[in-house]
Amino acid sequence: MRIAVLASGTGSNLKILLEHAAAGRLAVTPALVLSNNPKAGALAHAQAHGVPVWREDSRGERREDFDARMLKAIDKSGAEAIILAGYMRLLSGFFIQAFAGRILNIHPAILPSFIGVAGGQDALDYQARLSGCTVHFVEEAPDSGPVIIQAAVPVSPHDSLADLMPRIHALEHRIYPQAVQWMAQGRLKVEGRKVILLPRTGRNNTAEGTVRPSLGLAGDSPLGPWLVSPALEDF
Amino acid sequence: MRIAVLASGTGSNLKILLEHAAAGRLAVTPALVLSNNPKAGALAHAQAHGVPVWREDSRGERREDFDARMLKAIDKSGAEAIILAGYMRLLSGFFIQAFAGRILNIHPAILPSFIGVAGGQDALDYQARLSGCTVHFVEEAPDSGPVIIQAAVPVSPHDSLADLMPRIHALEHRIYPQAVQWMAQGRLKVEGRKVILLPRTGRNNTAEGTVRPSLGLAGDSPLGPWLVSPALEDF
Repeated sequence: MRIAVLASGTGSNLKILLEHAAAGRLAVTPALVLSNNPKAGALAHAQAHGVPVWREDSRGERREDFDARMLKAIDKSGAEAIILAGYMRLLSGFFIQAFAGRILNIHPAILPSFIGVAGGQDALDYQARLSGCTVHFVEEAPDSGPVIIQAAVPVSPHDSLADLMPRIHALEHRIYPQAVQWMAQGRLKVEGRKVILLPRTGRNNTAEGTVRPSLGLAGDSPLGPWLVSPALEDF
Repeated sequence: MRIAVLASGTGSNLKILLEHAAAGRLAVTPALVLSNNPKAGALAHAQAHGVPVWREDSRGERREDFDARMLKAIDKSGAEAIILAGYMRLLSGFFIQAFAGRILNIHPAILPSFIGVAGGQDALDYQARLSGCTVHFVEEAPDSGPVIIQAAVPVSPHDSLADLMPRIHALEHRIYPQAVQWMAQGRLKVEGRKVILLPRTGRNNTAEGTVRPSLGLAGDSPLGPWLVSPALEDF
């Protein structure tokens, strides 16, 4: 599956995706990396992996005009799906409709908690004891689409944002490639808000939907314990 | 610490608390169990453990009048703290103020997700991939007080409410006695929304606040994997 990746910042999730793809671990070919910030660190990762780049400054341009130009570049790249990797700008409705069910986003919170641009800080302000991250399909309302996979990590009242975010990012870097892989393998069956993970044997398996996928996986990392659902696979 | 427990239903959390208290594992003495439903299953648990019961039908009585009567019974029992164990009625402001910082509640969701009376069903309707439970101090706005401990469990699109709730209840039965124990030990230091867990050596430890408590704990149960924060202790 050819993918386009949109990024506005340092692109740490982009970097991980490109590394997995380059090593042949993901069933995707990165076709284009786009940024609305010509100075985004993400662009260096794309260039390091020889992935074509589309960089334009979105400041001062109407969203619809800018998004139409992005869409044209994406169509030309042959990308079949779009991965948002820290793209810090709302997307136009027509853009989302053009790739309906084929745009993924990652959010640094256990949605529906802490919707918005500051999931980590919001968790600290609330003094939640658990935070995490969520990969979901993108719909027009922000942070609203069907959920594919979620991870939880602990939060302590002694945490600063600099303590918490590496814990969340470590899980982002594990669950986002996993969700992309499932989409590329055609294993995500969406029914309303339900996202059913089909068995590894593929979409033509006659047992589709009859095999109950593993519920979740708990474990430890150097950054602390975590819980992910559905369970991660090797790739 | 003498505690009063309020319950309207089957009282499974009450049952666990009474069992731990009877076995000497918790630093609490259950002084009174109160119910606004004279037929609540919870009352049988109280009687089985020889705990005095206050049962009155709240139907048709003004909330303030009913709560004033409960408060009188609680004061008479000598209870220093109140544990809500499935008490399905809003409490009056004066009742909450009378025990400010000494009322605990458990909610079947990872707050602030799924506030309200149907945390489990709301998680299924949203199709969250993680749900769980939260023990928090009670303030006047429902499900709003400072968070003491949270647990996460996986959710699958194949789950019915009858699949999910036992998974949540299993964690409730572990984290609620833990939170009660911490309160009874005087180890919960509240600063605004922060709830700092003091070290096990007690409130007079000069190292108070300087020992970073264990962040969280991940594990497996017969019902599946889970994550709890802060970390559970033996008791």
